[in-house]
Amino acid sequence: MKILVINGPNLNFLGIREPEIYGKQDYNYLLNMLKDYAREKGFEIDCFQSNHEGAIIDRIQQAYFDSTDGIVINPGAYTHYSYAIHDALASVSMKKIEIHISNVKERESFRHVSVTRPACDGQVVGEGLKGYLTAIDMILGDGAGVSPGNNEPATR
Amino acid sequence: MKILVINGPNLNFLGIREPEIYGKQDYNYLLNMLKDYAREKGFEIDCFQSNHEGAIIDRIQQAYFDSTDGIVINPGAYTHYSYAIHDALASVSMKKIEIHISNVKERESFRHVSVTRPACDGQVVGEGLKGYLTAIDMILGDGAGVSPGNNEPATR
Amino acid sequence: MKILVINGPNLNFLGIREPEIYGKQDYNYLLNMLKDYAREKGFEIDCFQSNHEGAIIDRIQQAYFDSTDGIVINPGAYTHYSYAIHDALASVSMKKIEIHISNVKERESFRHVSVTRPACDGQVVGEGLKGYLTAIDMILGDGAGVSPGNNEPATR
Repeated sequence: MKILVINGPNLNFLGIREPEIYGKQDYNYLLNMLKDYAREKGFEIDCFQSNHEGAIIDRIQQAYFDSTDGIVINPGAYTHYSYAIHDALASVSMKKIEIHISNVKERESFRHVSVTRPACDGQVVGEGLKGYLTAIDMILGDGAGVSPGNNEPATR
Repeated sequence: MKILVINGPNLNFLGIREPEIYGKQDYNYLLNMLKDYAREKGFEIDCFQSNHEGAIIDRIQQAYFDSTDGIVINPGAYTHYSYAIHDALASVSMKKIEIHISNVKERESFRHVSVTRPACDGQVVGEGLKGYLTAIDMILGDGAGVSPGNNEPATR
Repeated sequence: MKILVINGPNLNFLGIREPEIYGKQDYNYLLNMLKDYAREKGFEIDCFQSNHEGAIIDRIQQAYFDSTDGIVINPGAYTHYSYAIHDALASVSMKKIEIHISNVKERESFRHVSVTRPACDGQVVGEGLKGYLTAIDMILGDGAGVSPGNNEPATR
């Protein structure tokens, strides 16, 4: 089992960027947390971050060729307008879970819309960094950690 | 006569991506079809594909300097929000035709809007890959293949 | 005092691009004007232009590490939809002024909206290239050149 975790724009600025919203842990902390979880659960993990919309699309397409079994993606602000990332996600058939660290539904109105969500099989919001593990569990088929309140099942 | 054909995000995934919408022919098939048409009609052709909005803008700007006579562009999903590609197209004066493989007007509502179209001299939709040839004919000034139903004349 | 001036998509086409809107002076003229002003006022200046949204975000993040004191940014058409550039600007705490050469408020309706403005401390519009100097003055704390009609104070 091989899982790809994609982080979009400004997520490399975790810990620096508005810590009252995104927390005090930095991007390296997130990477270590993900690698530890992969070791614990016994799956292969590949983590990718870019501020470039096109690079995120390139990476999703690469996943088609390198036998990735599932994608966890935090598209950052591209969530709200990148139909190109939507189309890239829709073009590959492995399981895809969208994740947001903060509760986007309680923030600025532009953050209420996700144009990428319809191309995913599920979404996790507002669980902080732990949400990445919840999203991974949804791919592994392990219900543990899925809090029904915040996470929508696939409706597509 | 030198024509540039630009394909935007995910068009390199032709044949892989939702074949019920975009057809079973892959991107290489499209390239060969375009090169054959250039040989038959006797014009020079240059084909460019990128998932990167910025790279598409760079290529449009390059066309200003390399004496391109016309641009056929399928901006993919950038059609629906890239005012930056709109502005790049508006900044160069050669003839520009927008093309979409599927009939975008019959699909999701976000695909009904083209923000790039107002910077083009015409648009071809819903003719499949053959639409690229229709668009080329519109640049060559050859009316053959222009189906009045789907293709809007320049209104700008 | 170190000021970074960021120009977004198509601003390298100044003088080429719709001169009736953007003027006849080219991008090099703007660069020289900015360097002359830096020498005159005695601050350090760094100028950056890219058509790539991701590259603009990368450059804003770099400013966090290279002790930049203020950013003057003309996001070009990204102004109207790049929440990712908004978030990058919001993630760094130095003073940031948005600038537009033309009076965007009197042009197409899509240009009336700035999604990047809320992450800036002020905005200058419709002053032509001179607006860059007005924006620099707003960072230097020198009120000279600020025309109250067009420039909004920080409301954030």
